[in-house]
Amino acid sequence: MSIHPLEFLFKPKSIAIVGVSSNEADLSVGRCYVQALLESGFQGNLYPVNLNGGEIFGLRIYSSMREIPGTVDYVISVVPAKYALSLLGECIEKRVKSIHFYTAGFSEVGDEKGRQLEMEILKAAGDSGIRILGPNCMGIYCPASRLSFSRGLLNQPAFPKEAGTLALISQSGVNSIYCVRKAVTAGIYFSKVVSYGNAIDINETTLLEYLADDDETEIIAAYIEGIRDGRGFINALKKITSAKPVIICKPGYTEEGTKAVASHTSSIAGSNALWPYICTQTGAIQADDVDEMIEIASLFQLVSVAGGRNVVIFGTGGGPTVKATDDLACFGFKLPPVSSESKARLKQLYSSEAGNIFSNPLDLFPVQHMEDLVDALAHIAADSEVDIMMLQVAFDAWAMIEKNFAVEFFVDTAIQLKTRINKPLLAVLHYVETENASEIAHVQRRKLVSAGIPVFTSMQTVARAMDKIIRYQKHCYRH
Amino acid sequence: MSIHPLEFLFKPKSIAIVGVSSNEADLSVGRCYVQALLESGFQGNLYPVNLNGGEIFGLRIYSSMREIPGTVDYVISVVPAKYALSLLGECIEKRVKSIHFYTAGFSEVGDEKGRQLEMEILKAAGDSGIRILGPNCMGIYCPASRLSFSRGLLNQPAFPKEAGTLALISQSGVNSIYCVRKAVTAGIYFSKVVSYGNAIDINETTLLEYLADDDETEIIAAYIEGIRDGRGFINALKKITSAKPVIICKPGYTEEGTKAVASHTSSIAGSNALWPYICTQTGAIQADDVDEMIEIASLFQLVSVAGGRNVVIFGTGGGPTVKATDDLACFGFKLPPVSSESKARLKQLYSSEAGNIFSNPLDLFPVQHMEDLVDALAHIAADSEVDIMMLQVAFDAWAMIEKNFAVEFFVDTAIQLKTRINKPLLAVLHYVETENASEIAHVQRRKLVSAGIPVFTSMQTVARAMDKIIRYQKHCYRH
Repeated sequence: MSIHPLEFLFKPKSIAIVGVSSNEADLSVGRCYVQALLESGFQGNLYPVNLNGGEIFGLRIYSSMREIPGTVDYVISVVPAKYALSLLGECIEKRVKSIHFYTAGFSEVGDEKGRQLEMEILKAAGDSGIRILGPNCMGIYCPASRLSFSRGLLNQPAFPKEAGTLALISQSGVNSIYCVRKAVTAGIYFSKVVSYGNAIDINETTLLEYLADDDETEIIAAYIEGIRDGRGFINALKKITSAKPVIICKPGYTEEGTKAVASHTSSIAGSNALWPYICTQTGAIQADDVDEMIEIASLFQLVSVAGGRNVVIFGTGGGPTVKATDDLACFGFKLPPVSSESKARLKQLYSSEAGNIFSNPLDLFPVQHMEDLVDALAHIAADSEVDIMMLQVAFDAWAMIEKNFAVEFFVDTAIQLKTRINKPLLAVLHYVETENASEIAHVQRRKLVSAGIPVFTSMQTVARAMDKIIRYQKHCYRH
Repeated sequence: MSIHPLEFLFKPKSIAIVGVSSNEADLSVGRCYVQALLESGFQGNLYPVNLNGGEIFGLRIYSSMREIPGTVDYVISVVPAKYALSLLGECIEKRVKSIHFYTAGFSEVGDEKGRQLEMEILKAAGDSGIRILGPNCMGIYCPASRLSFSRGLLNQPAFPKEAGTLALISQSGVNSIYCVRKAVTAGIYFSKVVSYGNAIDINETTLLEYLADDDETEIIAAYIEGIRDGRGFINALKKITSAKPVIICKPGYTEEGTKAVASHTSSIAGSNALWPYICTQTGAIQADDVDEMIEIASLFQLVSVAGGRNVVIFGTGGGPTVKATDDLACFGFKLPPVSSESKARLKQLYSSEAGNIFSNPLDLFPVQHMEDLVDALAHIAADSEVDIMMLQVAFDAWAMIEKNFAVEFFVDTAIQLKTRINKPLLAVLHYVETENASEIAHVQRRKLVSAGIPVFTSMQTVARAMDKIIRYQKHCYRH
C-alpha cells in the first residue's frame, strides 16, 4: 500500500529547519521553530541548517541540506523568498518529501515578481513528487506526532500536547493561532492544524480530501480566503459533509474584503454571491467568523443538539434574560412554559415570589440548599416538551449586595444538574469586561468546560450556532 | 417659577429610607441604600426608618415617617409590597414629594393581586402631587447630587462620583448597572441614571420630557421594555432628537420576548413591527442591545464622526484585518487606497515588504523609531480621501515570537497619532479571552480611553455603531 503523499507532512520521521541562526541572542523564527519542536517533544531527527554552521540547543547546525547524513521527510524554510528556489533544488536533490515555506514576500505583495517566483517554484518542483506548503504561513500543528509551531511564551503556554478530533485548516497564520487558543479555552483539542498561506501546491481541496479519510479527524473547520479549484473543492465537500461536519469561514464577501484577501494571501475571493449556495448544496456549515467556527465545533464535540428547539433558560439577571429570549426566538427556538407542577416545586423553595420569575426564562435567587434547586430543575428538564437546558448568568451587574456568590452558585447548580439529566446543557456568562468580571469569568468558565458544559458570552452566539447545527443535521438526514 | 415635580427625584434635600434594619449582620437592601448614599457623599438629611427604631452608621432610625422632624423630599421604600399602600398614606400625610418603591412582587408576578395593588397605589396617590418611581427598580444615580444606588463591593468600586452628560433610563435594574459599568470602562460618565421598573407613574415619556430640558444632559440612552402612552412618547421623541441624540434599546421584538417582558416589568412590549418605523420617523437611534447603546453613546462623546465613510485601518494581524474589512464594507464604509507617496514613506521604514501589507488595511510590524511610523500615518490621515483612522490589533495570536510588545507599540503609536491629526481615531482590540489577553486588554484599553480613543472588541461592533451615528446626523440635517 502506497503512503499518502501528505503523510510526510503530518508524520515526518525527520525535519530540517533551514535558516537557523546559532546566535543565542537572535530570536529569529528559525530558532523558534527548533525550540517549538523540542518543547513539543518531537521524537524524530531534527536538523537545523544554516550556511555558517554552529550549534543550537545542543543540536549541530548543518551548513547545507547536502551535509545532513540521513533522509529528510519534511523541511521548514524560513529563508528569505529570494533563496527559496535554490533551497528547493537542494531539497529535490536530497529527495525531501515535503517543504513548508514560512516566509512571506511572494505573490501576496502584489507585484509581478512574487507571482513569477511562485510559478518558478512550482515548475522546479515539477514531477519530483515534493509537496509544497505555503508560502506565507505557519505550517503544521499535529499533537499526535508532536509537530508544533508554538512554543511557551512569557504569559502564554505552548499549544497543548493533548490531541483531539477537530482538524483546522487556515490560510491565515494569526487566525490559526487564534482558533487554537480559543478552542483550548473551550476544552477542545485538535487532530491536525494546517496554516497554509498562499497555497501554491497544497490547498484547501488537497487538505479536505486528506482529512476526509483521516481516522483521527471527526470535525473539520476551515478558514479559507480563496478557492483555487472550484469544482474539485465542491466535489470534495459533497463527499465529506455527511460523514464529518465541515465548518467554513470565508471572508472577502464584500468588494473591499476581496481586495484585502488579495493583499493577505494573494487569493481570489471569487464569486461570493455563490458562496451561501455552495454551502447549502454541499452541506457545509457557513460560519460568520472564526469565533463562530470554533463555537460550532465545540457544540458538536460537547453536546448533542438533538434537533429539538425547546429551550428552558435558568439563572439570574432580569434584563439580560429578556434579551436572551429574543435572541433564541430570532433563530427559531421556543421557550416552552414551565408546567404548573414544576412551578409549584420551585415556589416551595422561596419564601416570596418578589424578585424571582418562575416562568421560562427562570430568573432566580440562590437558595439555601442547592440540591433542592437541582431537583426542581431536573424535574423541568425531564419534561418531554424540553429539549435544551440553558444556564444564563448576568454578573458584575449588582451594585449594592455582594452577590458574586450567585455566579458560583448557579455555575455549581448547572454542574450538578449536568449529572442528573441527559439533555444538552449549555451556559451563557454575560458580563461587562472589567478586571473583576474577567477574573470571575475565567474561573467559572473553566469549571463549566471541565464538566462538559460549553460556555458562551452571549445568547445570540449560541442560538446562531445551535441553529446551524440543527440545519446541518437535517441536511445529513435528507442524504 | 414653579419647580419641576421631578426635581425632587434628582435633587432631594432630604431622603427617608424605609425598611432599614438596625441589625449590623443584616445585609438587607435598606442598609445598603443608606450605605450607598453615605459613601456617595449625599449632603442632605438622611432618615432611616424602621418600626423597631435603633441606629445605623451613627444615624438614628425613626420608627415611622411621622416621627421624622423635618420635611422629606424623597422616600426610598424597601418594605414588602403588602405594606406599600400604608406607607404611601404616611408619605402623603408627611407631604413627601416623591417615593421610589424598590420592592418587586407587583404586577410583574402576573397574578391579579399585583396589578390590583398598583391600581390602588395610583388611586391613593390621587391628586396629592406625590410622584411614584417603580415599583421593582433600583432608583436614581445622579452623581451631581450624590444620589446613588451603588456601594463599593469586594472587587468592584461604587459608581463614580464624577458626572458626565449621558443620561440613562432603564426599566431593568441589572441593565442599568451593566450600562454604568460598561460606560465607565469606556470613559463615559452620567448626568442621571434612572432604573424605573414597572413604571406605574413616572414612565419613559415623563423621563424623556424631563431630560429634554435638562441642561446637564446631552445624550440620552434608554432601555425600554414597553411603552405606556404611545402618542405621548412619539411626540416627546420627535421634539428631542434633533437637539439631543436618543439611543433606544427595546427588547421583546419576538413573541417569546414579549412574554419575557411581561414577567420582568409587567410591560406590554407592543406592536414591534412598528418599532423601527417609529425610530426612523422620530430620529431615535435603535440599538440592537445595551452594549451597542453604550457604544454609540461613547462614540458620540469621544469622537465626531463627521459623515465621511472612508476608513484607513492600521495595526497588525492579517486574517482578522481581512474580516475587519468585510465588516466595514457591510455597513457602507470604504477603504480608500493609500496614495503612492504615503506608501513610499511606509516602505522606507521597513527593510522588506515580506509580512507587511502597505495597502489599506495596513498590516505592519513595529518599527525601531515609533515617531517615524506616526509621521507616516499622520501623512496618510491628512489625505482628503481619508475620513476615519482605525487602529486594529489582533493579539494573543502569536505562537512563537514574544510579540505582545507589538500591542503596546501600536497602542502607543495610536496615542501619539491622536495628537497629530484632527480626524476621528478609533481602536479595535481583538483577542481570545484568555487570562493573559484579558490582562493586556484591560491595561491597553485604559490607556487608549484616557487618550480619548474609543475602544471596541470587534470591527463589526464599531462599524454598526458608526453607521447609525452617520444616519442620525443625516436625519438632523434634514430637519
